[in-house]
Amino acid sequence: MDAEIIAVGSELLTPDRADTNSLLLTAKLNSLGIEVRFKTIVGDDLPRLEEALRTALGRSQLILLTGGLGPTEDDVTRNAVSDVLGRPLREDPEIRRRIEERFRGLGREMPPNNLRQSMIPEGAEWFPNPQGTAPGIWLESGAIVIILLPGPPHELEAVFDSACAPRLERLAPPQRIQTRVLKIVGLPESEVDRRIAPLYLPYGNPVTTILSRPGVIEVHLRARTTSKEEGEALLAELGDRIELALGDYVFSTRGESLEEVVGMYVVMKGQTLAVAESCTGGLLSERITGIPGSSNFFLGGVVCYSNELKTRLAGVPSQLIQEHGAVSKQVAQALAEGVRRRSAATIGIGITGIAGPGGGTPEKPVGLVFIALADAQGTQIRQFRFPGDRERVRYWASQMALEMIRRRVRE
Amino acid sequence: MDAEIIAVGSELLTPDRADTNSLLLTAKLNSLGIEVRFKTIVGDDLPRLEEALRTALGRSQLILLTGGLGPTEDDVTRNAVSDVLGRPLREDPEIRRRIEERFRGLGREMPPNNLRQSMIPEGAEWFPNPQGTAPGIWLESGAIVIILLPGPPHELEAVFDSACAPRLERLAPPQRIQTRVLKIVGLPESEVDRRIAPLYLPYGNPVTTILSRPGVIEVHLRARTTSKEEGEALLAELGDRIELALGDYVFSTRGESLEEVVGMYVVMKGQTLAVAESCTGGLLSERITGIPGSSNFFLGGVVCYSNELKTRLAGVPSQLIQEHGAVSKQVAQALAEGVRRRSAATIGIGITGIAGPGGGTPEKPVGLVFIALADAQGTQIRQFRFPGDRERVRYWASQMALEMIRRRVRE
Repeated sequence: MDAEIIAVGSELLTPDRADTNSLLLTAKLNSLGIEVRFKTIVGDDLPRLEEALRTALGRSQLILLTGGLGPTEDDVTRNAVSDVLGRPLREDPEIRRRIEERFRGLGREMPPNNLRQSMIPEGAEWFPNPQGTAPGIWLESGAIVIILLPGPPHELEAVFDSACAPRLERLAPPQRIQTRVLKIVGLPESEVDRRIAPLYLPYGNPVTTILSRPGVIEVHLRARTTSKEEGEALLAELGDRIELALGDYVFSTRGESLEEVVGMYVVMKGQTLAVAESCTGGLLSERITGIPGSSNFFLGGVVCYSNELKTRLAGVPSQLIQEHGAVSKQVAQALAEGVRRRSAATIGIGITGIAGPGGGTPEKPVGLVFIALADAQGTQIRQFRFPGDRERVRYWASQMALEMIRRRVRE
Repeated sequence: MDAEIIAVGSELLTPDRADTNSLLLTAKLNSLGIEVRFKTIVGDDLPRLEEALRTALGRSQLILLTGGLGPTEDDVTRNAVSDVLGRPLREDPEIRRRIEERFRGLGREMPPNNLRQSMIPEGAEWFPNPQGTAPGIWLESGAIVIILLPGPPHELEAVFDSACAPRLERLAPPQRIQTRVLKIVGLPESEVDRRIAPLYLPYGNPVTTILSRPGVIEVHLRARTTSKEEGEALLAELGDRIELALGDYVFSTRGESLEEVVGMYVVMKGQTLAVAESCTGGLLSERITGIPGSSNFFLGGVVCYSNELKTRLAGVPSQLIQEHGAVSKQVAQALAEGVRRRSAATIGIGITGIAGPGGGTPEKPVGLVFIALADAQGTQIRQFRFPGDRERVRYWASQMALEMIRRRVRE
C-alpha cells in the first residue's frame, strides 16, 4: 500500500517554513509498512488544492491531507475534498456539541466560524481531536482511503495515533520497513558506487540509496519484509557485503557521527586529546565538545589565528613561521606537538590552511590544508586540497582531522 | 509567472530528511517576483518522476527540478525529462571536458560513470557548476521553462545565482516581491509581538510574519508592488516604525548574522578580540572565524575544558577554581582577563557554564552560564540560565557573548 501526503498551507510555499508534519507522518506510516511515494505541498487555494487532490486520486491508494482544517475562510481542505469527490458537506451534531463543549470548558465564547469545523463530507467518518477543535476525517472512495488531519503537529499526532494508526494497521499489509545506514569517510560518492553497485544492483529488496552529505557518504538500505527477523537477515546479508567492499572507510553502521565514533575509540584506548587550530577556527573543538561526555577525553585546545598566538599559545617557534610560512607542513607539525606538550594530552592535533575566500596564492591556493597528528609514536602530517567555499574547506578539514584520529587510534 | 518545484530524491520521502532546497529557491524566485504554487517531492524512481513532471507540465509555467543529477544509476532526473519531452540525451563535449578537467585539478581519476553528467536533452542549454560536476540545465517546451539544478545546496545556489537568476529576471513579470527582515536578540517572541502588532495589523501590504529561530527573533515584511521604488517606500514606512518600537534589540536589517554585525563594529572601532571558552567548547571562536576577513580582528582563543588548561592557557589561578568552582563569576572574569592579557587583544571574552546533559547540581544547574567581557574600561560579568538541551545552551551562550560584545563596542 503506497501513500501520498498533501500538505496544505500557504506558509509552506514561503521561504521560511518547511513541511515537517510529513516527516512525522512518514515515520508512523513506515512503521506500519506503508511507503510514502509522493508529497505535494499546496497553498490555501481551492482550485489548486482540488487539482492536487485529483492528481493524487489518479496514482495513490492512500492519501493523507494535513492542514487547512481550521475555522477561517482560508481553510479549504474540507471543501476541496467535498467538491472533488462529489460529497456535499453536512454538519455533524456530535462534532458541534464537542466544539461547543470545548469552548465552554475553556470559559471562552465560540466564534461562529468554528462551526465550519463540524462540517464533514457525506459518507465520511470522523475521529475526535483530543488537542483541538478540528476532528480527523476518514473517507473511502472505491479502493482509495483519504484521511484529513489537522495541521498543528501535536493535534495531527494525537488524531493519527489514537484513531488512524489502528485502522490503517488493519488495512495495511503485514509488511515492515527496516533500515541500515552505513557512513563512509574518505571515498568520493562515485568511487563508493563503483565498488558497491555490483553488490546492490541485483537486489530489489533491500533498496539501496547513496547520499552525499558534507564530508560523509551514506549508504541507506531499506528492507520490506513480513517479519522483523527476515528484515534483519536481508539487511545483514547485503549490508555485510557492502561493508566488506568498503573496508575501513566505513566508520559507522548504527547512526553515530564521526566525532562520536572518534570519542568512543579515544576513551576506549585510554587516550586524551588536545587540538591547535588555525584555519578551522575552533570548529574541530566545537564538534568534539558537542558530544555529551567529551570532557572525559578532550582536554582543550587553542585557536591561533594570528602568528603571534601560534607562538604564544602553542609554542610554534616564530622562526619556523618566517621560514616556511604559517600554512606549511612544519607549522602543522609544531602546532600538534606544541599543543600536545602544553596540555599533556596523549594526542595533539595541528591544523593550518587557507579557508578562503581571500589569502590564496598560486603556490598556496585556497583549500590547501595541512593536518598533523602527534602522539607517543611520533607525528604524521597530511596535506589536503579541499574544494569549495570557506565553510566547506573548514568542515572538510575538521572531518579529515577526525578521520586521522580514528585511523590512528583504531590501529 | 507561477513556479512549481519538484524535489527529487528517495531520501526526501524518508522520515529523516526534509526538502530545504526549495526554501532557498523560493526566496530567490520571490525576489524575482515569481510565486511558488506547488512543490512535489518524489523519489529516485523513473516512472514516478515522469508522472510528477507530466502533472507539472499541465499546470505550471516554470518548473524547477532539484536533485537526481549525480553520477550514479539512481540519478534519473535527466532521463525523466528526456523521456517526457521526447528529447534524447546527447553528450556535450564541453561539459565532458570540464568534468575531466575538474578531476585532473583535484589530482583524482575520473570514474567512468561521471560521464553520465555530460549528457543533456536535445535542444537544452546548460550552465557551468562552479562547485561540482553536474551542470544546470535549461529547457523550453512551448511556453514552459524547465530548469534542472543539482541537489547539493551550495551547488544549487551557485548555478542558480550565476546563470538562472539573470535569465529568469528577463522573463519574469514586472511585479516584484520585496522583503525586509529585522533580526532581534534579547527579547522573547511574545514581547516582540506585543510591541509591534499595533503597528503591522493595519497593513495588508506588506505582510508581516514573526519567526522564532535559535537565539534570534525575526520579523519578516513582504511587500508586493509593481515598482522597486514603491516596494521600498512601503517597506521603509512600516519597517522603520517597527525598528523604532524595538529599539536597539534590533541588530540587523539587511540579513547580517550577529557575528557579522559584531565583526563590523569591532573592526570599525579598531578593536581586536580573543576568547577563552569552556562550556561552548570552541563554538564562539568557530562562529566568529566563519566570517571571511575575521583574521583582521580575531586574534584567537583557548578552549579550556580541563581545569588544568584553564590555568595553563588562560592563566586562571588554580586556587580561584578550587575556591569558587570552575563554573563561577570569578573564573569567567579570570578567563576573560587572562586571555586578553596573553593575546594582547583589546577585548577578552570568558565563558564558563554547564551545558549538560550531566554535571548539573541544585546550586549549579544545567544551563547556568557566566560570561565575562574584559576591555580597557574593566570587566563586566553576566550570569545566565539558558533553557534546553546541550546544543541550545551552547548556542545561546555564544549568542549572548556576541550580544555583550555588540553592546559594549557600539557604546
